Amino acid sequence: MNITIGRGKTARRAYGIDEIALVPGVRTLDPALADTRWQVGAIEREIPIIASAMDGVVDSRMAVLLSELGALGVVNLEGIQTRYEDPNPILDRIASVGKTEFVGLMQELYAEPIKPELITKRIQEIQAAGGIAAVSLTPVGAAKYASTVAEAGADLLFIQATVVSTAHLSPESVESLDLVKLCQEMPMPVVLGNCVTYEVSLELMRAGAAAVLVGIGPGAACTSRGVLGVGVPQPTAIADCAGARDDYFQESGRYVPVIADGGIITGGDICKCIACGADAVMIGSPIARAAEAPGRGFHWGMATPSPVLPRGTRINVGTTGTIREILVGPAKLDDGTHNLLGALKTSMGTLGAKDMREMQQVDVVIAPSLLTEGKVYQKAQQLGMGK
Amino acid sequence: MNITIGRGKTARRAYGIDEIALVPGVRTLDPALADTRWQVGAIEREIPIIASAMDGVVDSRMAVLLSELGALGVVNLEGIQTRYEDPNPILDRIASVGKTEFVGLMQELYAEPIKPELITKRIQEIQAAGGIAAVSLTPVGAAKYASTVAEAGADLLFIQATVVSTAHLSPESVESLDLVKLCQEMPMPVVLGNCVTYEVSLELMRAGAAAVLVGIGPGAACTSRGVLGVGVPQPTAIADCAGARDDYFQESGRYVPVIADGGIITGGDICKCIACGADAVMIGSPIARAAEAPGRGFHWGMATPSPVLPRGTRINVGTTGTIREILVGPAKLDDGTHNLLGALKTSMGTLGAKDMREMQQVDVVIAPSLLTEGKVYQKAQQLGMGK
Amino acid sequence: MNITIGRGKTARRAYGIDEIALVPGVRTLDPALADTRWQVGAIEREIPIIASAMDGVVDSRMAVLLSELGALGVVNLEGIQTRYEDPNPILDRIASVGKTEFVGLMQELYAEPIKPELITKRIQEIQAAGGIAAVSLTPVGAAKYASTVAEAGADLLFIQATVVSTAHLSPESVESLDLVKLCQEMPMPVVLGNCVTYEVSLELMRAGAAAVLVGIGPGAACTSRGVLGVGVPQPTAIADCAGARDDYFQESGRYVPVIADGGIITGGDICKCIACGADAVMIGSPIARAAEAPGRGFHWGMATPSPVLPRGTRINVGTTGTIREILVGPAKLDDGTHNLLGALKTSMGTLGAKDMREMQQVDVVIAPSLLTEGKVYQKAQQLGMGK
Amino acid sequence: MNITIGRGKTARRAYGIDEIALVPGVRTLDPALADTRWQVGAIEREIPIIASAMDGVVDSRMAVLLSELGALGVVNLEGIQTRYEDPNPILDRIASVGKTEFVGLMQELYAEPIKPELITKRIQEIQAAGGIAAVSLTPVGAAKYASTVAEAGADLLFIQATVVSTAHLSPESVESLDLVKLCQEMPMPVVLGNCVTYEVSLELMRAGAAAVLVGIGPGAACTSRGVLGVGVPQPTAIADCAGARDDYFQESGRYVPVIADGGIITGGDICKCIACGADAVMIGSPIARAAEAPGRGFHWGMATPSPVLPRGTRINVGTTGTIREILVGPAKLDDGTHNLLGALKTSMGTLGAKDMREMQQVDVVIAPSLLTEGKVYQKAQQLGMGK
Repeated sequence: MNITIGRGKTARRAYGIDEIALVPGVRTLDPALADTRWQVGAIEREIPIIASAMDGVVDSRMAVLLSELGALGVVNLEGIQTRYEDPNPILDRIASVGKTEFVGLMQELYAEPIKPELITKRIQEIQAAGGIAAVSLTPVGAAKYASTVAEAGADLLFIQATVVSTAHLSPESVESLDLVKLCQEMPMPVVLGNCVTYEVSLELMRAGAAAVLVGIGPGAACTSRGVLGVGVPQPTAIADCAGARDDYFQESGRYVPVIADGGIITGGDICKCIACGADAVMIGSPIARAAEAPGRGFHWGMATPSPVLPRGTRINVGTTGTIREILVGPAKLDDGTHNLLGALKTSMGTLGAKDMREMQQVDVVIAPSLLTEGKVYQKAQQLGMGK
Repeated sequence: MNITIGRGKTARRAYGIDEIALVPGVRTLDPALADTRWQVGAIEREIPIIASAMDGVVDSRMAVLLSELGALGVVNLEGIQTRYEDPNPILDRIASVGKTEFVGLMQELYAEPIKPELITKRIQEIQAAGGIAAVSLTPVGAAKYASTVAEAGADLLFIQATVVSTAHLSPESVESLDLVKLCQEMPMPVVLGNCVTYEVSLELMRAGAAAVLVGIGPGAACTSRGVLGVGVPQPTAIADCAGARDDYFQESGRYVPVIADGGIITGGDICKCIACGADAVMIGSPIARAAEAPGRGFHWGMATPSPVLPRGTRINVGTTGTIREILVGPAKLDDGTHNLLGALKTSMGTLGAKDMREMQQVDVVIAPSLLTEGKVYQKAQQLGMGK
Repeated sequence: MNITIGRGKTARRAYGIDEIALVPGVRTLDPALADTRWQVGAIEREIPIIASAMDGVVDSRMAVLLSELGALGVVNLEGIQTRYEDPNPILDRIASVGKTEFVGLMQELYAEPIKPELITKRIQEIQAAGGIAAVSLTPVGAAKYASTVAEAGADLLFIQATVVSTAHLSPESVESLDLVKLCQEMPMPVVLGNCVTYEVSLELMRAGAAAVLVGIGPGAACTSRGVLGVGVPQPTAIADCAGARDDYFQESGRYVPVIADGGIITGGDICKCIACGADAVMIGSPIARAAEAPGRGFHWGMATPSPVLPRGTRINVGTTGTIREILVGPAKLDDGTHNLLGALKTSMGTLGAKDMREMQQVDVVIAPSLLTEGKVYQKAQQLGMGK
Repeated sequence: MNITIGRGKTARRAYGIDEIALVPGVRTLDPALADTRWQVGAIEREIPIIASAMDGVVDSRMAVLLSELGALGVVNLEGIQTRYEDPNPILDRIASVGKTEFVGLMQELYAEPIKPELITKRIQEIQAAGGIAAVSLTPVGAAKYASTVAEAGADLLFIQATVVSTAHLSPESVESLDLVKLCQEMPMPVVLGNCVTYEVSLELMRAGAAAVLVGIGPGAACTSRGVLGVGVPQPTAIADCAGARDDYFQESGRYVPVIADGGIITGGDICKCIACGADAVMIGSPIARAAEAPGRGFHWGMATPSPVLPRGTRINVGTTGTIREILVGPAKLDDGTHNLLGALKTSMGTLGAKDMREMQQVDVVIAPSLLTEGKVYQKAQQLGMGK
């Protein structure tokens, strides 16, 4: 399994979403029989899809809509929503500037401090409308705002950074976040991420994670691989972390779901991630295309507004339908970006998988990525090379 | 052969049409001596090419023309031809709408029910003109219309879905189609598909299939891989199913031809599929380019009009010549899409293969796909990215 | 070495020119010391480059110019030059038609019969001007015109088809060309090709070939791989045929040079072919770019004018310099298409190879083709996708 | 490890920068704790980045600015700076001509001889302004101007050619440069390159190199691979030469840094080169984008002005910020080309590497290059194919 790059340096081959495909077995299934339920902590959901904690993807209204449809949406507590009482004029400005002014504007907008009272307000407005209040903080933000989130009574907390670890080295002047303590003390389940290896995901599960987020580098609006050189393609990362989940379940009796986060565009991508072992997926750009998305047809990454090293980009994803059409259809597009639940159920039917556990075990084949025209087309369009 | 994607997930490497090439042996042959005959049930054909059961590819007139030329064309009994007495104004509308209105129009047009009397009419008009009446139904359609097809006296029946299996699980309220019973009771040979594995093709042969269709995901107008994540590149799928055919022949003495269906654009593609073990090929987009094709220069997939999960796309393939020029030449184009029979015979001559059995055994080499400029160009043109 | 495509079908991995690169050793060399001489029959040449027997590449004048520079050019005796007394107005017409009219025009122009007296004339006008008269015939043409060529006193004869073999099966009414007999009876050295395997090249050497041409499918103006599915990437084909050359030399004491033909665009390509074992290269499109080339900036394949199955395409290569600049410089372009001899000598200096034998043994590395920008650029331009 | 290309020709697989990615371990680190210092001879630098000895990248002013920021810049002593007293009008001309006139103009400009007094002047004006005077000569230039450089008191000398070796064969009339003698006699540390193999880098270290430059073929403005066929992708070349460094350190107790030179565009590329074993990187095009760069938004290779075989190209890289923004930020762009030091420190933090030695040992994964959109986009833009 180890490949020699040169003397003294070996590497593993990792596989990307575009490099694999799923293989039907001897049985097929009526899609109506496919059971897609999954669970994080005590929260059970019909649809194994979570909308990313990104400014352009989830606000309070979107969180409520996603809850009603059987999915989940996470509000980024360190973004526009908690810096501005009324985010709408801010989002209008973001949508109106040109490509070259974008990074500068984001750096300016993020200079406005986070307001604890807006954290409380966002959580309460989601719950008041009957939604599940899932919110996210970075490790640095958690040190400051975890108590506010606890008091406001959020249902689910995501502690999320490009890379998270239980062993973080800080300058002596700064105290590092203790993930074990946080998981124990918070009154709601805490999801930790992102990670990409067996070892780290096992550490996070042992630290008390209610679920782990898997994925570094692959996202459409993420430039970690270009800026930092860091990243692992999703199928390999998911399979490794799913291995940790199964081993941890043997060790502890607790099942910690693995959530694939990043690089997932189509229904086919969702199916492939689950087939590699994921329990659910977190997606950004496909949700940013919804008419109800706060991004107004734009999508950008969480690391974009960094004052010293922005690493994210704004993509004009456009608006292609309602969030209902995107999640549960009926589809108005034929490219795999509408009716994502229908796509998953149809794929499970085609593959004969009755539930998520069976879907995690279907046959996978490594197939040349050049042949997936849909991807080539989408990629070309993103690059401005399409028609 | 098993490659590790990550812990607990291994996969096979599958090879695509663009990744292989054929290698001449020590003998060459005058193309005039190449014997391309093949047989399904009692029907023998000179040309191992079948036009796909798609609205834009085969209508009654095309079925007759293909029969006369020595090939076969299959009429889709669940498409435009059996929903509308006169399909011409309908096909005109399809050709006239823009890309964005297309899926909606197809969903509207397919809301019109299928009329059993039109099934009978299409079969009879083909036979009246001296053609072979080959028709197709989905498994769901077969439950409803198989008796009509039997009574109308079709010559050949294709039972075709994205994926077909002998073990289909349905809700209790719905009865599943029994493929074994169907093959036994129908008065004409029944072709089953699609499948991509040794196991499933063997099951279908044992169920009584007169031939099996091989191919999931690779077609130009098919987005199964993008929407469902499902698919196996043709050479691997064909070689596996050809292995099942040979084993089944050992076991039963009955030779069940393997028909490669999907992803085949040029004469070279046809040659490669046969070299991997296919007995014939089913092609859509190359036939849709004929002046006589019902699609008026457009081509779209069978799964396109799904009311909830359309997964097919309409491609503007253009009209490049007559069906005669496309099948038997003389070629007016030099890109491998005209005179497909001539290409096969010339390839067989070059490779020294006297008949289809020898052609199935020629040497294959794995060669980098990036170098086949023609393919990249055609793909780019299909995607509207070329000049 | 055998890779499983599917049950019962295995294949070798072959490598393309764009997939390899050359590795410097412990010694370097002043390019002025690099000895590039090679020999076919009794003819010794300073430059191991032969211009292809194509209408747009070599006419009598170009053959003379190439001889003077130390290279070779082959006149196609079944093309425009022997069908028309004055080829110039014909070449003007070819250069003036549009892409869509081209194949039809070529089929019309080639309906004009070959005139034996023009074969004699072309050979004599080259020799009268002091050039080496190297000419080519297909196996079918050789049956008719070999005696004319012998009588006219050509210096070198190429018998060339897409694929040539010593065992060709013809209909009973047609007599097959006996290559052994031809090599024995012709008064000049006979070069045979094309081939791509150890076995066939060994057969051709044993049949008496003065040199063998290696290459099926890779040429820029050749669509064999698209139309017929046939082809082997050059480095693998060259290395195999060079193996046959070395074994045949052991067996017979006769050294039969291997000429790489097709898919060679830049100086780097030439270097790589020799590093894989070639003694010389045959190139078409780089020569077609010369101001003196008969193609007027256009280049097309030998199989293009086939009345039933044209498989070649016309490429607008443009005119970039004189034949002197292209072959021996000084270069006015920096992309590897000018001063091909200088590139070879500089590469030999960089790699420390004193002569062709040492150059055939330098280290090769397999490196991802995506990184050769020059190639991507040229390919993009050919496809009309560049700037 | 040896792959068969064909009979008698085997090759190693080498890996490119775009094919690898870095994998986080179990520990993370605050970027502020990442120690990026490195040393060549007695010169210690905070930033392991050296600006290439190219006309469009480094002049005296840029060398001073880079020194102040904690990096290094090398002045090409055989380029514009030493041929012209005032290079500014010359650089204006280079920036003003069209693509087709460029090579001719460079050949004309380089016909002007090198003036020893300008060598002395450039070294002195850098030192007078407090900068480190690092300068470069080719082996041929070193034979002529090494004594001038020694007398002028340069701080660091680079002897650099496409490929350098300790065993260079010259015509009898020419004396070859003795690298061992040069390293011994020069009063300042001498850096030698370029090389790509274990054997040659070990030879250069034994010859007395203060550091070795690694990289042949990969640079953006270098066409060695296209023109000469020569090149080895960076990760493999770096790992091999780093192996020689470690073995030489065992053998001699002297640590000779390995400097990766060529093909490095983004911060991620820098991180990957170090992760493969490099101690520092030399970069051209990213620095050419600085407002202070002499190239006025253009970048071209050192081999471009060759009178007989130019092999380099001029790229319009544009001007994207100040040299400060590019090296140490804050970044105004989000694509990995600004704040290169910040990117390295953040990557080290993400990967848990405290210093350069730990960074050289982080885990690497082989991942499909097609998925790095940023690279494709940048490459397409360089080629003028993007939006």
